[in-house]
Amino acid sequence: MRTGIWLVGARGSVATTTVVGAAALRAGLVPATGCVSTLEAFDGVPLPGFDDLVFGGHDVVDTSLVKRAEQLADAGVVPRGLPGVLTAELDAADAEIRPAPPGTESGDQAAAAEAVVADLTGFRERLGLDRVVVVNVSSTQPPAAPHPAHSSAAALREALARGERPLPVSSLYAYAALRAGCAFVDFTPSTGARLPALDELARERGLPYAGSDGKTGETLVKSVLAPMFARRALRVRSWSGTNLLGGGDGATLADPERVVSKNASKGLVLEAELGHAVDGGVHIHHVPDLGEWKTAWDHVTFEGFLGARMTLQFTWQGCDSSLAAPLVLDLARFTALAHRGGVAGPVPELGFFFKDPVGSTEHDLAAQYATLVEWARAVGAPA
Amino acid sequence: MRTGIWLVGARGSVATTTVVGAAALRAGLVPATGCVSTLEAFDGVPLPGFDDLVFGGHDVVDTSLVKRAEQLADAGVVPRGLPGVLTAELDAADAEIRPAPPGTESGDQAAAAEAVVADLTGFRERLGLDRVVVVNVSSTQPPAAPHPAHSSAAALREALARGERPLPVSSLYAYAALRAGCAFVDFTPSTGARLPALDELARERGLPYAGSDGKTGETLVKSVLAPMFARRALRVRSWSGTNLLGGGDGATLADPERVVSKNASKGLVLEAELGHAVDGGVHIHHVPDLGEWKTAWDHVTFEGFLGARMTLQFTWQGCDSSLAAPLVLDLARFTALAHRGGVAGPVPELGFFFKDPVGSTEHDLAAQYATLVEWARAVGAPA
Amino acid sequence: MRTGIWLVGARGSVATTTVVGAAALRAGLVPATGCVSTLEAFDGVPLPGFDDLVFGGHDVVDTSLVKRAEQLADAGVVPRGLPGVLTAELDAADAEIRPAPPGTESGDQAAAAEAVVADLTGFRERLGLDRVVVVNVSSTQPPAAPHPAHSSAAALREALARGERPLPVSSLYAYAALRAGCAFVDFTPSTGARLPALDELARERGLPYAGSDGKTGETLVKSVLAPMFARRALRVRSWSGTNLLGGGDGATLADPERVVSKNASKGLVLEAELGHAVDGGVHIHHVPDLGEWKTAWDHVTFEGFLGARMTLQFTWQGCDSSLAAPLVLDLARFTALAHRGGVAGPVPELGFFFKDPVGSTEHDLAAQYATLVEWARAVGAPA
Amino acid sequence: MRTGIWLVGARGSVATTTVVGAAALRAGLVPATGCVSTLEAFDGVPLPGFDDLVFGGHDVVDTSLVKRAEQLADAGVVPRGLPGVLTAELDAADAEIRPAPPGTESGDQAAAAEAVVADLTGFRERLGLDRVVVVNVSSTQPPAAPHPAHSSAAALREALARGERPLPVSSLYAYAALRAGCAFVDFTPSTGARLPALDELARERGLPYAGSDGKTGETLVKSVLAPMFARRALRVRSWSGTNLLGGGDGATLADPERVVSKNASKGLVLEAELGHAVDGGVHIHHVPDLGEWKTAWDHVTFEGFLGARMTLQFTWQGCDSSLAAPLVLDLARFTALAHRGGVAGPVPELGFFFKDPVGSTEHDLAAQYATLVEWARAVGAPA
Repeated sequence: MRTGIWLVGARGSVATTTVVGAAALRAGLVPATGCVSTLEAFDGVPLPGFDDLVFGGHDVVDTSLVKRAEQLADAGVVPRGLPGVLTAELDAADAEIRPAPPGTESGDQAAAAEAVVADLTGFRERLGLDRVVVVNVSSTQPPAAPHPAHSSAAALREALARGERPLPVSSLYAYAALRAGCAFVDFTPSTGARLPALDELARERGLPYAGSDGKTGETLVKSVLAPMFARRALRVRSWSGTNLLGGGDGATLADPERVVSKNASKGLVLEAELGHAVDGGVHIHHVPDLGEWKTAWDHVTFEGFLGARMTLQFTWQGCDSSLAAPLVLDLARFTALAHRGGVAGPVPELGFFFKDPVGSTEHDLAAQYATLVEWARAVGAPA
Repeated sequence: MRTGIWLVGARGSVATTTVVGAAALRAGLVPATGCVSTLEAFDGVPLPGFDDLVFGGHDVVDTSLVKRAEQLADAGVVPRGLPGVLTAELDAADAEIRPAPPGTESGDQAAAAEAVVADLTGFRERLGLDRVVVVNVSSTQPPAAPHPAHSSAAALREALARGERPLPVSSLYAYAALRAGCAFVDFTPSTGARLPALDELARERGLPYAGSDGKTGETLVKSVLAPMFARRALRVRSWSGTNLLGGGDGATLADPERVVSKNASKGLVLEAELGHAVDGGVHIHHVPDLGEWKTAWDHVTFEGFLGARMTLQFTWQGCDSSLAAPLVLDLARFTALAHRGGVAGPVPELGFFFKDPVGSTEHDLAAQYATLVEWARAVGAPA
Repeated sequence: MRTGIWLVGARGSVATTTVVGAAALRAGLVPATGCVSTLEAFDGVPLPGFDDLVFGGHDVVDTSLVKRAEQLADAGVVPRGLPGVLTAELDAADAEIRPAPPGTESGDQAAAAEAVVADLTGFRERLGLDRVVVVNVSSTQPPAAPHPAHSSAAALREALARGERPLPVSSLYAYAALRAGCAFVDFTPSTGARLPALDELARERGLPYAGSDGKTGETLVKSVLAPMFARRALRVRSWSGTNLLGGGDGATLADPERVVSKNASKGLVLEAELGHAVDGGVHIHHVPDLGEWKTAWDHVTFEGFLGARMTLQFTWQGCDSSLAAPLVLDLARFTALAHRGGVAGPVPELGFFFKDPVGSTEHDLAAQYATLVEWARAVGAPA
Repeated sequence: MRTGIWLVGARGSVATTTVVGAAALRAGLVPATGCVSTLEAFDGVPLPGFDDLVFGGHDVVDTSLVKRAEQLADAGVVPRGLPGVLTAELDAADAEIRPAPPGTESGDQAAAAEAVVADLTGFRERLGLDRVVVVNVSSTQPPAAPHPAHSSAAALREALARGERPLPVSSLYAYAALRAGCAFVDFTPSTGARLPALDELARERGLPYAGSDGKTGETLVKSVLAPMFARRALRVRSWSGTNLLGGGDGATLADPERVVSKNASKGLVLEAELGHAVDGGVHIHHVPDLGEWKTAWDHVTFEGFLGARMTLQFTWQGCDSSLAAPLVLDLARFTALAHRGGVAGPVPELGFFFKDPVGSTEHDLAAQYATLVEWARAVGAPA
């Protein structure tokens, strides 16, 4: 079951860490720390093996993966020495990375979509892959402007045929993925496949899609703490989150338009799990000096018996690429399983991985995990 | 279903807050914040109502409950003004508090047990109670020295008859409770009913018991964070906990013998949920200036994909009495339900409430909650 | 040496706490915790005694001080019971609070200034005061728009005579104070007396002025930590500050225009003490649930020998009114001393108290303290 | 002015980082971050240059410095690649490291002292050094047992002549250093030169000594925060410090006897600067997983105006060797200056560098810095 993972943003930190990590796992150089799909609970589920994964992708930059891997080693994300022993595998992935086609950012979207479809089809055929999962790990986009073409597959096709540009970039890739017969995963809070037109297309083609916005750090912690308060009948009064981000992600999210998408997905867990709105909010600040690292500080006030006021604070110091990359592998494996198992449309059972799970309002990590295990075993069960 | 709650340590901060809170709930003066048993999940379960609860207990001190309640109001635990409007109810509870009988700490244990049995029986009969739950909220005791009489009910009866003192104080109360036909809950890490002799006695008499060590703060948070790391396949490397405690609890736990009991129960969750030992440990320091408040700081190092090292810290600032008191009410209600439902011996399904759940190795709060809900509905279902 | 303290914003939390506190100090009910001017270093300096202080002020609201004091007692700022025993003194201060005159916010500024002058003069004469210090503790204003009338006292007088509105509100009060022969202190980051025209006026009239923006919490800590890094030759790389504010101050500073003033003054210490710019910045978020309390979290990354990267974080949980009120008393006492000692114009030696010390670029708290002590002794020395 | 630095514990992490760093500075490969003596305030003071420093020392282990440096590079203390380009300099230092002579830990102390004297004299003469500063960077020792020979140089000489073992190890090195005409610095909390007998010897020989216990992290922060509270007249109520230490230092201080020395010196600053005792204390816990890194969490409660209770917490995440090594260079340079300038006995003006400054009760970092600058300029001034 050779499975292609096509990364949109293939030379970014998350993508590079994913490719390096998969190669290191195949070579038996590292344990699968952080890979959920390798937990005992999934023993026997017919997921594609790490040996079966083949990488390709699109990117707008052309720095080689080996060079990017060395930069990540300098930043402490990837062990020193690792890129050097994996150059053959990195070069192989490099050879399958294509420049983003003209028309993705401006110009003829219909033609751009066709070019992406051709890239995906070529990748699958040239390498003899059983299936391909397209994973969007590119920069967060601002929320999409509404467009009448979003409402149905037919309307979308017509608008594209008229030369319009109805799709945000992430959705353009989702559209092309579905057109090419590939499953689609949105690891960012961008729109991706979450438009009625694309949902319809996915169902028509029998393709699964998943998203949105990988739950890597602060929100992960919130997804267990918020249910804790709820189960203990403690009333949360305020929850204020501050995220200090370095690197490219920090710079992207310093853009007040783009951060809207991120803050929206980061805020969902609280109201869903607590059942009421709370003071506070999520704030993202760009601190270039942090590089590939991120620090989140959350401050929670809550009320107990007889109105006693108490406080919980936490500080999370993590490396986003290290946290995200194994989830990209997990998502590709689980989505390939879904595709093979005939799942079409959104896969709400993958909500465990996301801040804003498509098709689900469950944000309690424990419940999401139970759902994931049950689903994977059922989908993977012999017919 | 009039239910007595007999508090061992009835004039302590937790007990006083429990009595004040129950009275305030009955009077409709406060919401049931912090009371798990009032969550929607338990709608329809025939728990004794707050109106059905009657309080009594033992204590070695004789300060009145009204006075203790005022002290707690000065300390910010109980709203000012509340003790004043609840004096009638506090005085009623006061009238049912007995001095700890001679022989509980030294002297004739058999006679002491009989005196406790008489106090409990008198309480139940005088007030026409359907049943009584004895809850130990007194100071933490050191681990019990082994004694041959612990091995069976018969051996215990014989040792007591010979005038020996085989039981630690908490177990003496558990023994008397069971002898008097009362369910027993240990909210402390003391031995309580956890001896083969007492387990046998409970089963013989058809009485439930539960414990140990109410999970009020730091360990509560650990019971959701440790499973989070496990489910994300992140490898925890160290987990160091520091607890700054004021007040009586801090003074008790500054005793190096007594703190052994507490540290043992606080440490269980990690190894159970992570599946391996970690560096660190739990440390308790007495800071009198903190009064009724507690601050815990936990520092966790963990490893992610490709060996990346990351850190999570949290600071919990809570009031232990405010956190414990509603759980005492919950435990009394659920244990009364168990008693009524014919449950005999340990009640592992109450593990949600405890650091060291008797009869259970499950420490994941979410799993414990699911178990609790299912159990309560089943036990409470019409026959 | 009877000294009037005229509070602009006389019914706000800081002002109310100041009046309550001064009355409690006079009555010997509380120690002078937080009052710098009572430290041993100032023994022998002829500051006005707490018995010599008389309060008045302006405000736009008319809630009585007793009522405001009770609200602050409910919020835990002022001890319960204190307002009740000080009603006579609070009522006396209440009787000297005037509504803000028409023209301060819109309309004829010249007439408004005259009305304020009349209020101040009446206060001084009616109560037989030796001198009056006007202290601005009202809400933070946005930075003032430039106006040609700011350049000289003559230009200002002419603009006012022409019916123009050249002055921001804080400066209107400063102008009136100086016109009435009163010293002026700006406890906020508003413009206050910091215009060439008002500086000229202060010097002409022999009046001292001080400011700006009382250094009560986060910036106070920064004013010792930044010099610590500098003296140890450690290179600070980023310093990110997050302030969670409840209450009125939080609401005011949620206004993006007003917060500009505050952030500007909060940022000064770092560059001054470190000698270079750093990544990060100061962020203020409004969390109504915090009420009168504030939590600041600062995250600092720094570089040591051979490029080692390290981190310092601090969390400050304080009550701004409790921190500010004793400084208002200190500033009134020291400014009265300056006035009595013939100091005219800015008093840079009071920089210890301010985030943005007028006339000084020194932000190292230790140096500011040494300067303050030396100055007070010199100004207070017998001629 | 060729100056030898003789490191007791020459293959430890601090010593190795010191030697690597000095070599890197000489080679112009790194800036002098963390070196106080290079601050502008010391321009013109005739300190020995980095080019003038020559290293030797004693150690009980024999791992080569190059190997130790590579281990520190793996641990992230020293930049990767640096040991490789400095092998010549590391080998040169290695050649001057001698095994600890027999008799230092047990056996004939007089003979051991002579052996150390011979090593020191040989080092100075063989390399043509103007002077040698002996710096103790070995493991912390427990407090010394009192011995009559500590009272005077004569009593000490006689006890050694009688074959007794009156000196703790750190003092044996101090004795030998002074006997060999070398200045002595104790960077640890061990006894070192702080015995009347050794003080007398230092004064007789015209040799300076300094100590104790380098102020590298948590205590450094306390030495600015405690004066901040004092200057603001805020009353500190409790100050609880928790130190999580990995590596060798953590293992040493997990020994309850040795930690006594460390806790004693860590506690001095608070009482000295606050003027009264506070609840809390300093706690050290060994967390091997932290390796060369250390995390300290301090929790401070304080009282403000009208009794308001507030809290400050800080978390310091540092690398002790990176923090200590530049101070070792500073201390060697300043102590060489003192020696050259004829200073004999303790040098209290070096208190800036120490938790327990010999000859000084000043713990305010700002005051210590001012004293250091003034002293260095005076001692270094042309005659």
